[in-house]
Amino acid sequence: MSARTLDARSPAPELEVAEWRNARGPLSLAALRGKVVAVYAFQMLCPGCVSHGIPQAKKIASVFPREEVEVLGLHTVFEHHAVMGREALDAFIHEYRIDFPVGIDRPSDSGPVPATMARYQMRGTPTLLLFDRSGALRQQIFGMADDMQVGALVAQLVSEGANQAQAAPRCDDGACRI
Amino acid sequence: MSARTLDARSPAPELEVAEWRNARGPLSLAALRGKVVAVYAFQMLCPGCVSHGIPQAKKIASVFPREEVEVLGLHTVFEHHAVMGREALDAFIHEYRIDFPVGIDRPSDSGPVPATMARYQMRGTPTLLLFDRSGALRQQIFGMADDMQVGALVAQLVSEGANQAQAAPRCDDGACRI
Amino acid sequence: MSARTLDARSPAPELEVAEWRNARGPLSLAALRGKVVAVYAFQMLCPGCVSHGIPQAKKIASVFPREEVEVLGLHTVFEHHAVMGREALDAFIHEYRIDFPVGIDRPSDSGPVPATMARYQMRGTPTLLLFDRSGALRQQIFGMADDMQVGALVAQLVSEGANQAQAAPRCDDGACRI
Amino acid sequence: MSARTLDARSPAPELEVAEWRNARGPLSLAALRGKVVAVYAFQMLCPGCVSHGIPQAKKIASVFPREEVEVLGLHTVFEHHAVMGREALDAFIHEYRIDFPVGIDRPSDSGPVPATMARYQMRGTPTLLLFDRSGALRQQIFGMADDMQVGALVAQLVSEGANQAQAAPRCDDGACRI
Repeated sequence: MSARTLDARSPAPELEVAEWRNARGPLSLAALRGKVVAVYAFQMLCPGCVSHGIPQAKKIASVFPREEVEVLGLHTVFEHHAVMGREALDAFIHEYRIDFPVGIDRPSDSGPVPATMARYQMRGTPTLLLFDRSGALRQQIFGMADDMQVGALVAQLVSEGANQAQAAPRCDDGACRI
Repeated sequence: MSARTLDARSPAPELEVAEWRNARGPLSLAALRGKVVAVYAFQMLCPGCVSHGIPQAKKIASVFPREEVEVLGLHTVFEHHAVMGREALDAFIHEYRIDFPVGIDRPSDSGPVPATMARYQMRGTPTLLLFDRSGALRQQIFGMADDMQVGALVAQLVSEGANQAQAAPRCDDGACRI
Repeated sequence: MSARTLDARSPAPELEVAEWRNARGPLSLAALRGKVVAVYAFQMLCPGCVSHGIPQAKKIASVFPREEVEVLGLHTVFEHHAVMGREALDAFIHEYRIDFPVGIDRPSDSGPVPATMARYQMRGTPTLLLFDRSGALRQQIFGMADDMQVGALVAQLVSEGANQAQAAPRCDDGACRI
Repeated sequence: MSARTLDARSPAPELEVAEWRNARGPLSLAALRGKVVAVYAFQMLCPGCVSHGIPQAKKIASVFPREEVEVLGLHTVFEHHAVMGREALDAFIHEYRIDFPVGIDRPSDSGPVPATMARYQMRGTPTLLLFDRSGALRQQIFGMADDMQVGALVAQLVSEGANQAQAAPRCDDGACRI
């Protein structure tokens, strides 16, 4: 694997998604601000994605509560476009029992690499993007990442938010807490 | 897994293949008589086929010499037909580095189950068919079979032939041996 | 596995160690205050410890920096005492390339279960104890724990400390930082 | 792994065993003539033996019927002698649920390498020895051998015997068969 640990805390570029599966409506990094977001870029015919990436994405979704961490798949097709279309992806999602939202990265007019993949300069699939609660991209990992390492990275981002939340007063309808 | 050990030594029904990949021309059980033949029925979007069946088929091809054992894939599509066509299969074969011949089981006019799959009354994918040198079907295993068990079954069929061959006089251009 | 998530923040009972290996001198939870501590209770002839616990302990030590997380083995022999003595343990530590400190849980005068194991009411081996920076026991997991889950738990404890440290002024020889 | 395929069909040197466990009395290659014999040389504190060799030995015992294939462990201690004695081995056999016979290779008077290990010039542990029905050593594999490969090798030896048996007239109480 190759990993980038990023310090820049400015919000990352938005996902460019043509269509969502397993979602009630369009999703965006902006709308998920406040949560940690794990985006798994994959292709359904990429062996490493199938053997490693998808199981790891499922594991993130099972270890962390959805109120804290949103797991999104992103189908970033950059080869064999004709056979990895929407209908093929639907069969894949069904057969591999994927129940988190999966976005179809918007195809490009000018080349094989789709929009979000280009925007994030991904080197291939699988690529894991980890965003903190403020929407900043904090990790971009290409290839196989170790489960324990990923668990640690996600938990660190979760804890940042939780501690910030605890530090600031939290108000709801009835009261404000310190 | 469920396995059938078959004693019937009559030649098995022929494969019904619409098209072959990784092959110079049409293949048939009849033409392979004299060799042990391992046919791996799979679907490219079947998780158990991808994680278990294809790797096991590759291992058979690497453990046994091709003069003795022919490994054939058979793409028996019985669901999601629209997205597991020839072009999709070609991408799969390329991405999963499959170099043994793969036949496309002939689609049926009357239902979702293709011809060879119906003829052999397969219960699903992956299914491993093992034929002896005389062309008789000797094992039909549905599901996950253990590598050591499969190695033992194939070797047993190989040895039958070898011993028969040793028992009978073998002649080549120059001489006959006892 | 069975896990207890503990809220009690009072310091946990001290380890009762007869002897340390891979350590320059005696270690204690008290002396490690300020760090997260992962204690892996194991027996060298316990299959689950060998196949799962020891590799996971090594992984914790490789994923987290030692300034933040101290990994300790604890040899809690409660059966086959005669053949899991100090010399046998030394051979095991050597052969399994264990380089973190390992304590020998102090044998009991009154029964087969050693002192620390009894004190923590462990149910068997492997058992993972996770202590926070204040020395409080926060997790006690008996059996196989998932790598991602463990990575998340340890990272959460690491982050608590880090955030507390950030919240409080930190002073060293030269200066105090906010 | 490194493997030797041996053609020499002369009977192999006998095992030199100080004591047997899981056996009613002394065992020998000579007494097992007529069966294929798989001898797994191991040390209880050898990581590769524990993670790979012992499970593979168990698998051979489960795949092949005992009337055809005898699986024997051989505890060939060449290091850490003091902590891999008989009592330690008994605890190991119990904890790892080994139910095939295990012989203790006879210690040497003149060096650390025990008698059978020396006689077979083994390079370390695990080492798998495969003997045919005539008692000849046919394979000597040091290190990790693939399950399918081992299954094929054992089955080949089994079939040799079976075919010889078929070739020769077999008589029992009631009749003789060709």
